Amino acid sequence: MTDKRNKGYIHNAKYKVMRKDMTAEILSSFFYPESILLVGASSKPKSIGYEILKSIINFGFKGKVFVVNPKSDEILGIKCNKTIEEIEEKISLAVILVPKNLVFDALKSCASKQIKNVVIITAGFREVGGEGAELEKQITEFAKINGIRLIGPNCMGLINTDENVRLNATFAAEVPRYSPVSFLSQSGALAAAVLNTISLTGYTFGQFASIGNKADVNENDLLEFWWKDEKTKVITMYLESFENGRKFFELANQITKEKPVIVLKAARTKSGSSAASSHTGALATQDDIVDCALIQSGCIRVKTIEEMFETANSILNLKKLNGKKVAVLTNAGGPAILCVDEIEKQGLKISELNETTKNKLREILHPESSIKNPVDMLPGADATAYRTAAKILSEDENVDAIIAIFVEPVMINAFDVISQLAEEQKTNSKPILIVTFPLPHFWEKWKQNGIKDSVILKSVELAPVIIKNLYDYHFRI
Amino acid sequence: MTDKRNKGYIHNAKYKVMRKDMTAEILSSFFYPESILLVGASSKPKSIGYEILKSIINFGFKGKVFVVNPKSDEILGIKCNKTIEEIEEKISLAVILVPKNLVFDALKSCASKQIKNVVIITAGFREVGGEGAELEKQITEFAKINGIRLIGPNCMGLINTDENVRLNATFAAEVPRYSPVSFLSQSGALAAAVLNTISLTGYTFGQFASIGNKADVNENDLLEFWWKDEKTKVITMYLESFENGRKFFELANQITKEKPVIVLKAARTKSGSSAASSHTGALATQDDIVDCALIQSGCIRVKTIEEMFETANSILNLKKLNGKKVAVLTNAGGPAILCVDEIEKQGLKISELNETTKNKLREILHPESSIKNPVDMLPGADATAYRTAAKILSEDENVDAIIAIFVEPVMINAFDVISQLAEEQKTNSKPILIVTFPLPHFWEKWKQNGIKDSVILKSVELAPVIIKNLYDYHFRI
Repeated sequence: MTDKRNKGYIHNAKYKVMRKDMTAEILSSFFYPESILLVGASSKPKSIGYEILKSIINFGFKGKVFVVNPKSDEILGIKCNKTIEEIEEKISLAVILVPKNLVFDALKSCASKQIKNVVIITAGFREVGGEGAELEKQITEFAKINGIRLIGPNCMGLINTDENVRLNATFAAEVPRYSPVSFLSQSGALAAAVLNTISLTGYTFGQFASIGNKADVNENDLLEFWWKDEKTKVITMYLESFENGRKFFELANQITKEKPVIVLKAARTKSGSSAASSHTGALATQDDIVDCALIQSGCIRVKTIEEMFETANSILNLKKLNGKKVAVLTNAGGPAILCVDEIEKQGLKISELNETTKNKLREILHPESSIKNPVDMLPGADATAYRTAAKILSEDENVDAIIAIFVEPVMINAFDVISQLAEEQKTNSKPILIVTFPLPHFWEKWKQNGIKDSVILKSVELAPVIIKNLYDYHFRI
Repeated sequence: MTDKRNKGYIHNAKYKVMRKDMTAEILSSFFYPESILLVGASSKPKSIGYEILKSIINFGFKGKVFVVNPKSDEILGIKCNKTIEEIEEKISLAVILVPKNLVFDALKSCASKQIKNVVIITAGFREVGGEGAELEKQITEFAKINGIRLIGPNCMGLINTDENVRLNATFAAEVPRYSPVSFLSQSGALAAAVLNTISLTGYTFGQFASIGNKADVNENDLLEFWWKDEKTKVITMYLESFENGRKFFELANQITKEKPVIVLKAARTKSGSSAASSHTGALATQDDIVDCALIQSGCIRVKTIEEMFETANSILNLKKLNGKKVAVLTNAGGPAILCVDEIEKQGLKISELNETTKNKLREILHPESSIKNPVDMLPGADATAYRTAAKILSEDENVDAIIAIFVEPVMINAFDVISQLAEEQKTNSKPILIVTFPLPHFWEKWKQNGIKDSVILKSVELAPVIIKNLYDYHFRI
């Protein structure tokens, strides 16, 4: 867990004084740049140099866009500069995607232009070893000496979906809806997979950085930056290695008292670690140590990307959890049983409903409903029944959280039921998680007209996992 | 594990002789009926009695449809009969959905019409206890004496998507594409959840039965029936309880030598069991005994519906697995690492590629690709590279199965890559599982023009689980 490469500025005495004061301000320009320079923009559709420029323009970046390409006069309506040096305006962020052998020169030009924030998309450095690794070392050293903060190389860029920024400096065609979740990915391709499928999953986030080989900026820098960043309410990270584990856990221990930090740590197994080392040249760590350290520092460790984003969304949009007793409300027996199995497996408790609750439920529900927990209201239960029953359950002192499962039957409209439940989710004082299996046209309609920032899941097994995560977070030792 | 209620015909000496010979033929009419009678069809849209009739008509049932409704002359273009008795034609299958207090009379009329196959959709029987349980007992007894086989009560009906049958006697609006998978669900609502989301998941099956309270026909009957049914190649079951566990495992032990049986057994925990008993009035069984018995009898035990259908599809459409050494082919580092973690977690092995393989890969791939397993071809890899690399990997004696992961980058078309991989999946002698994260428009195009009966997953974690299931099935002791 020691950092032999010693690239982190904090443990590097040589640059400590110079860099300390500038850190917050200088990292800020990665996510809130006033202008962006693309070095290596291309006029050829489908090339990365063309697609990134298209992303920047299409997403409506609020700052100025500059482009360097010696061979073209104009790309996508943006005038091209032949060299970096000929640009007169101030540049806050440069994105370099020229071929590997031209990267160092581009960086030198950035330095001469006093650009302090540089993203290197180009691959072929430490992850391939040999000359690539040597070149990365030189570039990193140069950046340090010149007070440049570097993201990458071998990464896929930056996103900030904040309305005042609208930065998409990646080659991803799809961008999420904004939320105050910040997302770091050590793997660009994993982030690409997330972004490709975002219209299906509906995950939301604001700031995103793909940090690739972590030549300079690493998870610790971003942890610190997002800690202080007012727009960030939840920090999520996909990591394959820790650049400086001790520093990470020290930081996390402080941050998680104020903001949740959710970590998907891959390369958990021996084979996974070995694979990771040839991917971003990262050194992996023993998994049980990681587990222990993550728990002690108050981080939420998740197993899948879905769990990561749905937990983040739940922390943001559900009320605070005050215990581990869960009530299940359903119109569907089978899914409720699968859910109850998972509640027990997660070490949560199935609420024993008190008599008042049972009597109230009996009054409003079909006589053949099951008023034990899980409360099975049968397929006839409509939006009003769902909302009333959820309210009744929430008034029971033996209920800390509610999972409401709705399988759409022909006679009941899913949109109405989910709308009422989502309203209750917002107004009730206890967390209510909604799981639904509606007919296919529901999702499109919900995306257009549904209540924003709701927690609506597609898997009965995931809801208890999220409650467990909320519990661990709120009741950390 | 003894069956105190003794409803199974095989252990019921009284009816043994009479029923034994008729069993195969008589169960067959549930899935291959020549005519179907709906008792309790309704003229009111959104009612179950209307929606089931609509399903039967819209799905294009190949046999004759009869309807009983004393108040209407015609519903959805089908002439209504006032009573069952007035119908002159022979009826092979009756579906009863009248109110509970009219069910017994309807069944008596079916008996007088010599109908031997009856599905009772109506709920409110054993699952609510008291009078309901008593009524179910009477009805079941009556059915036995009259040689009627009964599915339900408290169920959601039957489906057979076979082109020669086209039966959808459920109130589900969505029906899967045909495959020789037969699917039993003890929970109607779970089946409804599966059917509601079928256009997203793409699961396929042929025969489906929701068996509800299992008053007569239970999982053992269908296990036997599907064993002998030539159209069934894989049997899948969602169960909350075993009606006669000993019989189930004896049967499964024989059947799994010929056909795979995949079981999702819910009510695994104490709370889950308790929930199940108020759902379909079922008695649950200790989970570790179930696990042990399922393994010994050669069944594949799965944990989720997704795993169940994707395993069924993989058994049908992948080549036979001959060992547990897995190679991963990818254009995306992060997802490959998550996959490798899961391969190790499942007790499979990461193939050590031999030198010949590495040399061949080196020749065709980008020089900066990683030619260790996982083979990371980098984002530039196109359809030809994917197919050629898959072929090379399959020729290595250290490779028993290949997981090919493709995250769609801007410059490469997902449809071409997946088409080539799906072709290779069909022609190669080893199993190739495809996992992809394409841009959103891919799925619709693939549904229209893609190669049918391919195994294409949306989760890197699921692929190793499926390989483990295939391994356990093929290498059962």
